[in-house]
Amino acid sequence: MWIGSGAVGRTVDLVAPVATGGRVAVVSDSNVAPLHAGPVREALAEAGLETTLHTFEAGEASKIRRHWSRLTDEILAEGMGRDGCVVAVGGGVTTDLAGFVAATYMRGVPVVHVATSSLAMIDAAVGGKTGVDVKAGKNLVGAFHPPVGVIADTDHLSTLPALPFAEGLVEALKHGAIRSAAHFDAIRSATAALRGGNPSEASSVVADSIAIKAAVVAEDEFEGGLREILNFGHTIGHAIESATAFAVGHGTAVAAGMRVEARMGEALGVTEPGTREALVEATRSLELPPLPPIGVEQILDHVGVDKKARGGRPRYVLLERIGAAATGEGFARPVPDAVVHETLVQELTDAL
Amino acid sequence: MWIGSGAVGRTVDLVAPVATGGRVAVVSDSNVAPLHAGPVREALAEAGLETTLHTFEAGEASKIRRHWSRLTDEILAEGMGRDGCVVAVGGGVTTDLAGFVAATYMRGVPVVHVATSSLAMIDAAVGGKTGVDVKAGKNLVGAFHPPVGVIADTDHLSTLPALPFAEGLVEALKHGAIRSAAHFDAIRSATAALRGGNPSEASSVVADSIAIKAAVVAEDEFEGGLREILNFGHTIGHAIESATAFAVGHGTAVAAGMRVEARMGEALGVTEPGTREALVEATRSLELPPLPPIGVEQILDHVGVDKKARGGRPRYVLLERIGAAATGEGFARPVPDAVVHETLVQELTDAL
Repeated sequence: MWIGSGAVGRTVDLVAPVATGGRVAVVSDSNVAPLHAGPVREALAEAGLETTLHTFEAGEASKIRRHWSRLTDEILAEGMGRDGCVVAVGGGVTTDLAGFVAATYMRGVPVVHVATSSLAMIDAAVGGKTGVDVKAGKNLVGAFHPPVGVIADTDHLSTLPALPFAEGLVEALKHGAIRSAAHFDAIRSATAALRGGNPSEASSVVADSIAIKAAVVAEDEFEGGLREILNFGHTIGHAIESATAFAVGHGTAVAAGMRVEARMGEALGVTEPGTREALVEATRSLELPPLPPIGVEQILDHVGVDKKARGGRPRYVLLERIGAAATGEGFARPVPDAVVHETLVQELTDAL
Repeated sequence: MWIGSGAVGRTVDLVAPVATGGRVAVVSDSNVAPLHAGPVREALAEAGLETTLHTFEAGEASKIRRHWSRLTDEILAEGMGRDGCVVAVGGGVTTDLAGFVAATYMRGVPVVHVATSSLAMIDAAVGGKTGVDVKAGKNLVGAFHPPVGVIADTDHLSTLPALPFAEGLVEALKHGAIRSAAHFDAIRSATAALRGGNPSEASSVVADSIAIKAAVVAEDEFEGGLREILNFGHTIGHAIESATAFAVGHGTAVAAGMRVEARMGEALGVTEPGTREALVEATRSLELPPLPPIGVEQILDHVGVDKKARGGRPRYVLLERIGAAATGEGFARPVPDAVVHETLVQELTDAL
């Protein structure tokens, strides 16, 4: 993994050793391809690799089986074999979608992620999760397929609009919330500098946040235990995304999910009082958009099919306090329906 | 793995430990479901597991992404979580398709294969390959997802029509051809008894053949080396299937592929003279149908996208003699185009 200003120049170092057949399929979306795919392809071409470019329309709505099929068929038509490599250039949608193409292409070819968004750098490109959304919910079809390497070139963040940039920082806040109060505070205090595009500040926050996630993943690659804490805020967050047909962005939904799940923890006496308030303050500084009008029942309808459900019961990661996920009863636990319902009602009322 | 008469009774022993959420999705085709899905479901229900049945129309034409999507969505709609289990009841199409559903369902749930055909017992259910066919070729989309266990109940073979039974034995012959002359001869001499449905004879041949494949797979789970020898006959075989839109069955195509690839080896001086003739005799006793009229160029068009291609060049497993794959220049190697063309012409002419 290469993190920092100019890191994209290292892409070829990751790709060349695995693309032994000399063929590389670059996958990118309609926003990112015009900005960043060209330089990546040129650098690979200079190293003697033959590249083809495969694009899809930007947006979470493209992270579906139909685009996975089409991208796969396009790359097959180019004749790339098992000795080829997929290079994803883009944000979390691109790394998830291209990663799933790579995971299933001839039963698996290597993938390198060139993460260009704060979300992809901090979250999506690390940990090996790939997948697509289906009607029943987000990421319900996919595979674990760790990339052979990740490039996080913080220069790319300067091309990112304000909202996606802020949404990516929600995952960094989450990493702080579950494992490091210092990281949590660093993001909160550095938000203004980060929004101003201060590259050195961004590099250090991104690197710290990746390090937290990588440490959790390294302890539990296939999500049998500890890794579940990375889902803090996500049981409710994913349900909000699904219930609004992805009109609410991932970061905005997870920020709301963290507030709700902190409130659950406080109601159950698991989470230190004031934790939710700290999350409210930290996410307020990110200037995320308000949630659209949405009913509690709509959200609850989508909680049931979440992957974290076991034996049909949704499970939640709770905090002990900012900087520490609660691990007393396993890393994720069921919460009584009445508490889930009540905290959702409170949160949606407060959000008005 | 349980092999032999009555082995299906052991299914619950394999499923119960992994279906910790108590939910099981049984996947089967329209021919096999009425015969064998009921008893499997009843046995699982007796152990307290809740099962749902998900079927598709029998035939290789169903091994496509559309059915994979539909089966996945059906199981999601039933609410099965990551703590569920998929049980495939059927032949090679079912184990490949259901295995791919399991591989990608919530990024992977366990699968148990109840193999009911000779092909599935001998080949498809062992080794962890799953996948679907696409326009560009067979099995070009898929994943490695080893089953937690395999049931090969030889009583099920008595319900199998003559042609699928014989086609499954082609893979057993292949196992003999690449690793054991004794196994090759045993199948040839036992073919009549096997066709008569002699269960004890079938059990021992099936068990021996699985043992050969399992030993090869164990040495090389992800097909980086030795495992490639299992593809003997398959570079040409898959191309014949694709070129005829799967009108030619897998066993019939691989039998022809083995003859062509043996002829290549003899032409190159790699394979002992007379090897192809031994394959002709052994496959003749299986009474496979003749190939339909098919052009050499049609077959060659489909060889190029085979997974065994590296750097765009198709590769072939050659024999040293019956019982031993040639391994001098790696386990699969390119063959000069002129030799491929010439041997295909000869084989198609001889087949007339």
